[in-house]
Amino acid sequence: MLLKRYLPILTWLPHYNARLFGADLLAGLIVTIMVIPQSLAYAILAGLPAVVGLYASILPLLAYTLFGTSRTLAVGPVAILALMTGAALSPIAAPGSELYLQAALVLALLSGVILVLMGLFRLGFFANFLSHPVISGFLSASAILITASQLGNLLGVSASGHTLIELVPSLITSLDKIHLVTLAIGAGSLMLLVVMRRWGRMTLGRLGLNDGLAGLIAKTGPVFAVVITTLISWGFDLETLGVAVVGDIPKGLPPLTLPAFDASLWHQLLIPALLLSVVGFVESVSMGQMLAAKRRQRISPNQELVGLGASNLVAAFSGGMPVTGGLSRTVINFDAGAQTPAAGSIAACGVALITLLMTPLLYHLPIAVLGAVITVSILTLVDIRMLRLAWGYSRSDFAAMAVTILLTLLEGVEAGIVAGVSLSIALFLYRTSRPHSAVVGLMAGSEHFRSVTRHEVETLSHVAFLRIDESLYFANARYLEDTLYNLIANRPELEHVVLICSAVNLIDASALESLYAINARLKDSKVTLHLAEVKGPVMDRLKHSDFLDTLTGRVFLSTYAAWKELRPRPDQP
Amino acid sequence: MLLKRYLPILTWLPHYNARLFGADLLAGLIVTIMVIPQSLAYAILAGLPAVVGLYASILPLLAYTLFGTSRTLAVGPVAILALMTGAALSPIAAPGSELYLQAALVLALLSGVILVLMGLFRLGFFANFLSHPVISGFLSASAILITASQLGNLLGVSASGHTLIELVPSLITSLDKIHLVTLAIGAGSLMLLVVMRRWGRMTLGRLGLNDGLAGLIAKTGPVFAVVITTLISWGFDLETLGVAVVGDIPKGLPPLTLPAFDASLWHQLLIPALLLSVVGFVESVSMGQMLAAKRRQRISPNQELVGLGASNLVAAFSGGMPVTGGLSRTVINFDAGAQTPAAGSIAACGVALITLLMTPLLYHLPIAVLGAVITVSILTLVDIRMLRLAWGYSRSDFAAMAVTILLTLLEGVEAGIVAGVSLSIALFLYRTSRPHSAVVGLMAGSEHFRSVTRHEVETLSHVAFLRIDESLYFANARYLEDTLYNLIANRPELEHVVLICSAVNLIDASALESLYAINARLKDSKVTLHLAEVKGPVMDRLKHSDFLDTLTGRVFLSTYAAWKELRPRPDQP
Repeated sequence: MLLKRYLPILTWLPHYNARLFGADLLAGLIVTIMVIPQSLAYAILAGLPAVVGLYASILPLLAYTLFGTSRTLAVGPVAILALMTGAALSPIAAPGSELYLQAALVLALLSGVILVLMGLFRLGFFANFLSHPVISGFLSASAILITASQLGNLLGVSASGHTLIELVPSLITSLDKIHLVTLAIGAGSLMLLVVMRRWGRMTLGRLGLNDGLAGLIAKTGPVFAVVITTLISWGFDLETLGVAVVGDIPKGLPPLTLPAFDASLWHQLLIPALLLSVVGFVESVSMGQMLAAKRRQRISPNQELVGLGASNLVAAFSGGMPVTGGLSRTVINFDAGAQTPAAGSIAACGVALITLLMTPLLYHLPIAVLGAVITVSILTLVDIRMLRLAWGYSRSDFAAMAVTILLTLLEGVEAGIVAGVSLSIALFLYRTSRPHSAVVGLMAGSEHFRSVTRHEVETLSHVAFLRIDESLYFANARYLEDTLYNLIANRPELEHVVLICSAVNLIDASALESLYAINARLKDSKVTLHLAEVKGPVMDRLKHSDFLDTLTGRVFLSTYAAWKELRPRPDQP
Repeated sequence: MLLKRYLPILTWLPHYNARLFGADLLAGLIVTIMVIPQSLAYAILAGLPAVVGLYASILPLLAYTLFGTSRTLAVGPVAILALMTGAALSPIAAPGSELYLQAALVLALLSGVILVLMGLFRLGFFANFLSHPVISGFLSASAILITASQLGNLLGVSASGHTLIELVPSLITSLDKIHLVTLAIGAGSLMLLVVMRRWGRMTLGRLGLNDGLAGLIAKTGPVFAVVITTLISWGFDLETLGVAVVGDIPKGLPPLTLPAFDASLWHQLLIPALLLSVVGFVESVSMGQMLAAKRRQRISPNQELVGLGASNLVAAFSGGMPVTGGLSRTVINFDAGAQTPAAGSIAACGVALITLLMTPLLYHLPIAVLGAVITVSILTLVDIRMLRLAWGYSRSDFAAMAVTILLTLLEGVEAGIVAGVSLSIALFLYRTSRPHSAVVGLMAGSEHFRSVTRHEVETLSHVAFLRIDESLYFANARYLEDTLYNLIANRPELEHVVLICSAVNLIDASALESLYAINARLKDSKVTLHLAEVKGPVMDRLKHSDFLDTLTGRVFLSTYAAWKELRPRPDQP
């Protein structure tokens, strides 16, 4: 069982058969063709040689086949991680330098170690700390950054930088150097890609293809763009006209690489590796869950961490770069009918064959075409809907999203994601730190208690019934004290306070301390403190302290029971 | 009104009279005598010249008189901030150097700016993010660190460092150099202080003094220790025997100092200043609130930030060091009967007079005595009770406390407080990220619903009633989805799911997205989603989105209403 948990391949391999292999083979071949332009493009986006993208699409896929739980996830270099990799490495070394390559391997290694450790310690829940608006804002802003960074490639000018503040001036000052042939190639591929994406499926459908196949072919636009433009570039020898082309890609299988053990380099890359791991995991696991749900399968987030971690470790030792489950390659894998992770292994073999034999064919591929491929695929991540939803629904969610977007654009990906996460946690704590509370009274003719400000209710002058609508914990412990002290300061005739805990799901040690303090202070003021409707788990916990012994009043099962007990008796004055 | 809010002196000065002045004068004079040894001691603890402690006890007190809201808080250098100041400055410069002095001023300035800004932006609630166990653990560990750092002074050897890892070896290697006369003076004062603190009040009471006065005199032990040992030191000329003494303290009023504007220095000190500000604020405001409550007064945490900020700004411009409300000096001020912040101004004048005229009298005061003063006052902060309470009550609170203590001792004050805060927030989010939820059923003969696993209840096979005991927000949005998908996967006969929201105090945008997704997925599975017992504020918020329009089912006011509506009718099959 333990073996099956950590090696999910054991759950499906014994049942593997020819039918499944047939489906996986088809999907694997389609993915192979698709990922070649993407892999080259993302390596260049990260400031690495194009071949690194191919290496990262071979052995990491085999590792995921062994350790991953999603049946359809396709692992490899992805745009966001490429952007984050470039941002993490550029302060350390110049793109293209030996140190830069080394640092990319270290980043993949650290990311792999972090992911595997998080998986083994079952820390997958950490991904939940990224709220939807923050993820959405981060992805949208990253997409804009990536597009801006590709504008240089599309225009044939050199634009560098990892924030809009760096990119925009760099683009503007080089507008006079636009290379028209490059622009023509870039704009042409962009148009081809947009047209195929938008109208390809419909047109092919009209031509008599079945809808699934038409959809799949429409998605392979990048392959057509690459083939056509490479042929044009070769035929007209565009390189001599000054069009930047991919150039020599070393032929052969991935090399065995050993990431440098350099303490100061590791130290510098630790935080970027952590951020990269979490972002990659979130991107991968949300997609994996969505697709698994469509087929009523399940994935295990903690084992996914192990699978992605193993992929990154393997990438570090085979000349690669940080990888995760890629959006577009996974969708294609799914649509092409992949049934098991074996499809990934087949794609890995395909990429290996191409790397081994066919890289010279890519020599004339213009970089501008790769820029167009990235741009068209990344712009789908810009999510205006979430921005609108957050604005209409919750200003604090909107604030977290807006800060994430602005900081990502202006300060870079790391600042953006850190600020977004910190802000959403801080805003949540702030909201829960001033819980809604209501003094309630009895609805006539019922056993229900409602707020005295919203309803016509019966009250008792010497008893206050206070309902707290939040778990009691450190962030609101002091607020609770304030609320109660204000209550007794304003109603000197009070003899009893009943704290209604129906919405209290947790009382932590800070809040317990506050309850002790409240109990003591109320006692000084000759007011008895009672609790009502304390939930089972909360009550169990309170019994671990001596609070219930020191409590001046009682714990009532229901508010009505407290009412019956504390109301003046007919025979009393 | 606005002027009164930001200048609280306007609320009490118009009503000031001779009776109040009499009380304040007495308290001010007693505090003056008390703070002299403390101020010297804390400056030396921070690695600064002794006179800096005196300067920091003059003008900052006047600033607090203008801007502070507590009637009895006494501002000045305190042990914890002195420790944090030393830890922040020692990586930057050698203690005693000109740069070190400059950096202390910059630290006070930054701290002042941060506190004032937090006050103006009403960010006082940030202090709530420090949970009681973390504060308590931090104070205990700091007290141990301070005691360890004073052992060197008490033994007459030089021990340096800001963590136990640095201090302990440094002490052990110099054990053979113990200076016996210093040890005798140190141990003697330690005993005097402990005896006066423990038995002074009782003994003086027996001698016929009234209890209040006896208590006050017992607290002035440090003054006696200083006077007696200074006389001995002077009489026997201990300095020539090798006992470290305070030495020359420049006579005169505080100088006007201008903190250096050095961008890199400011940058290095920004985070330490932030931590120091928050810790100082928490220490000061908790004490201020406790004492205000004793006299049924109130303080305003946000205005306290302004008051403490102003004090630190003034300290930066008058040769001082970071200050905040001090525990022992405030208690003495309170016990001596201070009625208004004017008592602080009187103490400031007293300290100014002493600095102006009487510093030569302090020449022979042995440093060991100051070490004894610090040790006795700081060890009261070690709080074993909270450690025990946290252990018994909540393992996650205990974990946060233990990590804070260990990291403070071994890695230093900054690492300790940052780790403690992060861990308590992370643990809280973790706990709320896997909310308790229960499938419930109807208790026979009632309208109450209880968990099917804990009670004998009626259920409907085609309807699941699920109660979620937590607010729905980003950290548990995905968990909610998992819970619901598992529920429908395990019960294929389900037609309706009723989500009971009685304990849901908040639904944020992430959770709303999850509700959309759940609604859509349940629809695909031909299951209708209903809500029940949605609270008013949550409902108001939901109406800001179109979720209620897309919801496949209804929103029921009570779970029982849903039961009545969804149970099979007698006339149905």
